[in-house]
Amino acid sequence: MTATVHCRQFTPRVGAPEENRRRCTAAVRRAAAEGADIVLLPELATSGYVFASRAEAAAAALPADHPVFGEWAAAAGRATVVGGFCEQGAGGRLYNSAAVVDAGGLRTVYRKTHLWDTEKRFFTPGGELPPVLDTPVGRIGVLICYDLEFPEMTRYLALSGAQLIAAPVNWPAGPRIDGRPPEVVIAMAAARVNRVAIACCDRSGPERGVAWMEGSAVIAETGEVLAAAEDAPADRDGARTVRADRDLARALDKRLAPQADALADRRPELYRQALGDR
Amino acid sequence: MTATVHCRQFTPRVGAPEENRRRCTAAVRRAAAEGADIVLLPELATSGYVFASRAEAAAAALPADHPVFGEWAAAAGRATVVGGFCEQGAGGRLYNSAAVVDAGGLRTVYRKTHLWDTEKRFFTPGGELPPVLDTPVGRIGVLICYDLEFPEMTRYLALSGAQLIAAPVNWPAGPRIDGRPPEVVIAMAAARVNRVAIACCDRSGPERGVAWMEGSAVIAETGEVLAAAEDAPADRDGARTVRADRDLARALDKRLAPQADALADRRPELYRQALGDR
Repeated sequence: MTATVHCRQFTPRVGAPEENRRRCTAAVRRAAAEGADIVLLPELATSGYVFASRAEAAAAALPADHPVFGEWAAAAGRATVVGGFCEQGAGGRLYNSAAVVDAGGLRTVYRKTHLWDTEKRFFTPGGELPPVLDTPVGRIGVLICYDLEFPEMTRYLALSGAQLIAAPVNWPAGPRIDGRPPEVVIAMAAARVNRVAIACCDRSGPERGVAWMEGSAVIAETGEVLAAAEDAPADRDGARTVRADRDLARALDKRLAPQADALADRRPELYRQALGDR
Repeated sequence: MTATVHCRQFTPRVGAPEENRRRCTAAVRRAAAEGADIVLLPELATSGYVFASRAEAAAAALPADHPVFGEWAAAAGRATVVGGFCEQGAGGRLYNSAAVVDAGGLRTVYRKTHLWDTEKRFFTPGGELPPVLDTPVGRIGVLICYDLEFPEMTRYLALSGAQLIAAPVNWPAGPRIDGRPPEVVIAMAAARVNRVAIACCDRSGPERGVAWMEGSAVIAETGEVLAAAEDAPADRDGARTVRADRDLARALDKRLAPQADALADRRPELYRQALGDR
């Protein structure tokens, strides 16, 4: 069944959590009105990214039962929403998390397991595997940003039946490769070797001197980029919607040739020997 | 230490094993004369690829103690050679193998563990992990073609200290992605997430109606393509040498940011949980 995937790449503002939450909910409402089945918001969309201190991160953190997720649910229509937020956990711990929400409410929270660079100062790494959830348009898995650079994670989600991997990201600006953010090249390869679609929702706008790739992309299970931020028109405030339609049933077919299959051709007994406890 | 890597993309001819062997040895001699430290030949360089029958493959197969490897050794100079051949194993078994040869002789043979499509009709899959060997310019690992599409394999070689992965390939022609063979996109991502260089030596020339990507590439540990066949001049017979220099010491540094490291940031305990016996 064809899924309409929307990545809403906007500019969260550190220190303005109420405004960020309003903008997230507005983005969900707009995407739902435009017919989205899957809506992605950036990593840490409710808080911004460049915290000056742990206290600042803590002040922007939300518990998983915060009313904003009820607002997303009310705005979601038929869509499933995957959006990043700064999570207030037990014992004062903070997590870089993603909420999965549909009209029925909060379905699950995933806590980023691979923390990038200075995130290690603020956040506790998640200790649970990423979720895989059925939606009306197919099964989705969730990762956050740097997680995508660990092929073990994308492989796990593919083996768990994910047809689309939805990843809120905040990619710091840097040199492109072949005109693409390097993170997109990594996602293209992960999509192709696993025959899963991947959607990455980046943020826009500089924050405290940090610039971003602004590189949201929706990638087919073949590895082709179906839609990329650089081809999407910008609103007056620099926000963009990167949207693509794809029949996610394609991701159920792992055949590469009459006698080749991306997953069935794996050699798990060799991998155990190779990677064992690694 | 800077390594000069040469991929010699030529046209093996099925049914002409003596000619193929001569051309392999000539390619090694030429690359050595041109200063190569690492020389790659295509997959099944001594036999050609498109066998009409198992008997034809068997007739072209060489045992690992065949004199041709001594010829490569005599021609290698300071270089280490990684070249594909059709291997005659015990009990009449055939393997799609790569020989690693230097001036001292045959160092090892790797048997392709992930067989592509019709190869399954002719070959027995290898049952051993790919080799990792020290050379004067750094530690190299060996894969063959479709093996590269299994991130478990590239990860294993990186964790084993490989600084360059040398891969003889025969990539059937197909649509490109972003102007690259899709297999190159996969190798670019594997290089970047593991911070290893990757050299892929493809073949040229149609064979029994099968066309090839002719997409040899040398890829840096950043994922950037340093040299690609489409930018290398063709000889009169369509052969090309794809060459690049790279300090392989770069591949020993896995840091991505002051507090991020491509290998140290892995979460093996999660991967065990995720992939277990898979």
